[in-house]
Amino acid sequence: MPPKSQICPIRWQDHALFLLDQRRLPAAETWLRLDSAPEVAEAIRDMVVRGAPAIGFAAAFGVVLSVRQHGAEAGWRKRVDSDIKLLAAARPTAVNLTWSLGRMAKLLETESDDLAASLLNEAQDQMATDREQNLQLGTAGAALIEKGSKVMTHCNAGALATAGYGTALAVVRVGHWQNKIEQVFVGETRPWFQGSRLTAWELAKDGIPVTLLADSAAAQAMRQAGINWLIVGADRIAANGDVANKIGTYGLAVAARYHGAKVMVVAPHATVDMTVSDGSGIPLEQRSANEILDAAGIENCLPEITVANPAFDITPAGLIDFIVTEKGVFQAPFDEAFKCLKTGKTA
Amino acid sequence: MPPKSQICPIRWQDHALFLLDQRRLPAAETWLRLDSAPEVAEAIRDMVVRGAPAIGFAAAFGVVLSVRQHGAEAGWRKRVDSDIKLLAAARPTAVNLTWSLGRMAKLLETESDDLAASLLNEAQDQMATDREQNLQLGTAGAALIEKGSKVMTHCNAGALATAGYGTALAVVRVGHWQNKIEQVFVGETRPWFQGSRLTAWELAKDGIPVTLLADSAAAQAMRQAGINWLIVGADRIAANGDVANKIGTYGLAVAARYHGAKVMVVAPHATVDMTVSDGSGIPLEQRSANEILDAAGIENCLPEITVANPAFDITPAGLIDFIVTEKGVFQAPFDEAFKCLKTGKTA
Repeated sequence: MPPKSQICPIRWQDHALFLLDQRRLPAAETWLRLDSAPEVAEAIRDMVVRGAPAIGFAAAFGVVLSVRQHGAEAGWRKRVDSDIKLLAAARPTAVNLTWSLGRMAKLLETESDDLAASLLNEAQDQMATDREQNLQLGTAGAALIEKGSKVMTHCNAGALATAGYGTALAVVRVGHWQNKIEQVFVGETRPWFQGSRLTAWELAKDGIPVTLLADSAAAQAMRQAGINWLIVGADRIAANGDVANKIGTYGLAVAARYHGAKVMVVAPHATVDMTVSDGSGIPLEQRSANEILDAAGIENCLPEITVANPAFDITPAGLIDFIVTEKGVFQAPFDEAFKCLKTGKTA
Repeated sequence: MPPKSQICPIRWQDHALFLLDQRRLPAAETWLRLDSAPEVAEAIRDMVVRGAPAIGFAAAFGVVLSVRQHGAEAGWRKRVDSDIKLLAAARPTAVNLTWSLGRMAKLLETESDDLAASLLNEAQDQMATDREQNLQLGTAGAALIEKGSKVMTHCNAGALATAGYGTALAVVRVGHWQNKIEQVFVGETRPWFQGSRLTAWELAKDGIPVTLLADSAAAQAMRQAGINWLIVGADRIAANGDVANKIGTYGLAVAARYHGAKVMVVAPHATVDMTVSDGSGIPLEQRSANEILDAAGIENCLPEITVANPAFDITPAGLIDFIVTEKGVFQAPFDEAFKCLKTGKTA
């Protein structure tokens, strides 16, 4: 029996797409009803939904809405294609968005009696597969954890970023369900506060004990609480096991090593990019200075200072104990271990 | 010639105390005029002025204002004593406040022709001594630094916390004046943003190149920029060299050790508390959960989660390379080195 988690940020109901508005969490649980593809594109752009897998699924339902709206019109295909382009451009860097839309576009080529129904089926399938895969990640990761573990995580690699369970938080959920996890710690995750707004919310919602900290309080918490595991997601993993993830992951991994805590990275195998040999080949997005200055209320008043606001950092493979994917659990040396991903064999 | 720094948060002018309102920095440079001791106490309580030494000096001028106001009245001494009690209670934990007020109270016992003038003289003396001492700290610390250094600091151990120059930032100022410092990095210092609001402001003001980061971006900056030194202040130092300082210092020291950067703690020798044998004997203030939740706009909406908000952490002596005081520069083992502080001999 899988651990109970009702949290899923995406719902199809009454012939419309409903998205949990993540911008308003945790202060308000508001569901937005979307009835057309352009509305879905706007919601993705405006961060109503975030997390690469969740964005992809929302876009897939956007295609369903487009066909439902235009399917009976003359020249409907042109309108649907234009909607797909709109959806694809909403967050151009998310790989999953391209993948999800690609699957929908392929279905559009087939002769189906009820195209809208086939498309809806595909979108719902993508979500079901994601939930299943996340449960596999969770089970594989939790198997590594000993009873009484105290776990630190970072940002939100959770149900809210996926169709359910999450990646790193799937491990936390299964581990908690197996009575192995005593307490979860999460930093607020500046500058976007995904830790305080999303991760703390979804863990509390599922009854998992969670302690929220300023990011800079993490090292002391590791020492004082005796944290055993750092469990995080990944945005991209190089062929040698270097991991790009939310800014702050690297510092936490350094602190984990210093305190003898183990580091587990949890991600679908598609996150491993075998075309990039190491972390230096992964481009790291620099974001606006205002994300740093906004919170202190000091926008535009310190022109002489430089603001560095990298969205991601690289944690070198040497600091990582396990990389958990649905194709298996990998250990260093990762370049050797990952070879089976190329051949299709599971680890 | 000392490095130029005009920044001093406290000014006596036109028979009144002027405080730079640090709550409004850097968006506005506003000076508040205070004409009575209760007004000064309120300003201290409300964080118009912060930093242990600066609080002490502001309170000392509060005594001057009290004697100027009540000195000619019958029973004036009782009123002044009551003002002193008010000032002492404004921020009860700051040691310097007690020390500054103690000096003023002692002067009140003397037979002086012009008591107000003697008290004013004492308050101004305390500030002049602090500036001179901070310059000594700066010179001693800068002597340890090699040319081309990249320095990380934390929170605000700067001019704004003292009568001028600061402690850690005195080292940065002298080092920069000696052309030894290429770039200074500072984390925003959640939850109060002393890094973004105060340190970045005062360094930029003095023409010292400064880069502001999210606290969690520090480790990656150490690696990418090749930071040589972590230079911080201290709230209290145990007899074995363990240092209590703003939350986040410990994590930075761990990251500094990992990256081969040296760690320098800069503080007046009075910060060394020989009655406390190690860091475990230093009580660490836990502050309100709302300081963490406020910034994310989520006060009172996550009752199930625990918030940990320690104001300070302990950096063990083993991670510290130098402790710089005006009585000398100390190196490990600190318990041996500190013995001269007891005997009064300088290192």
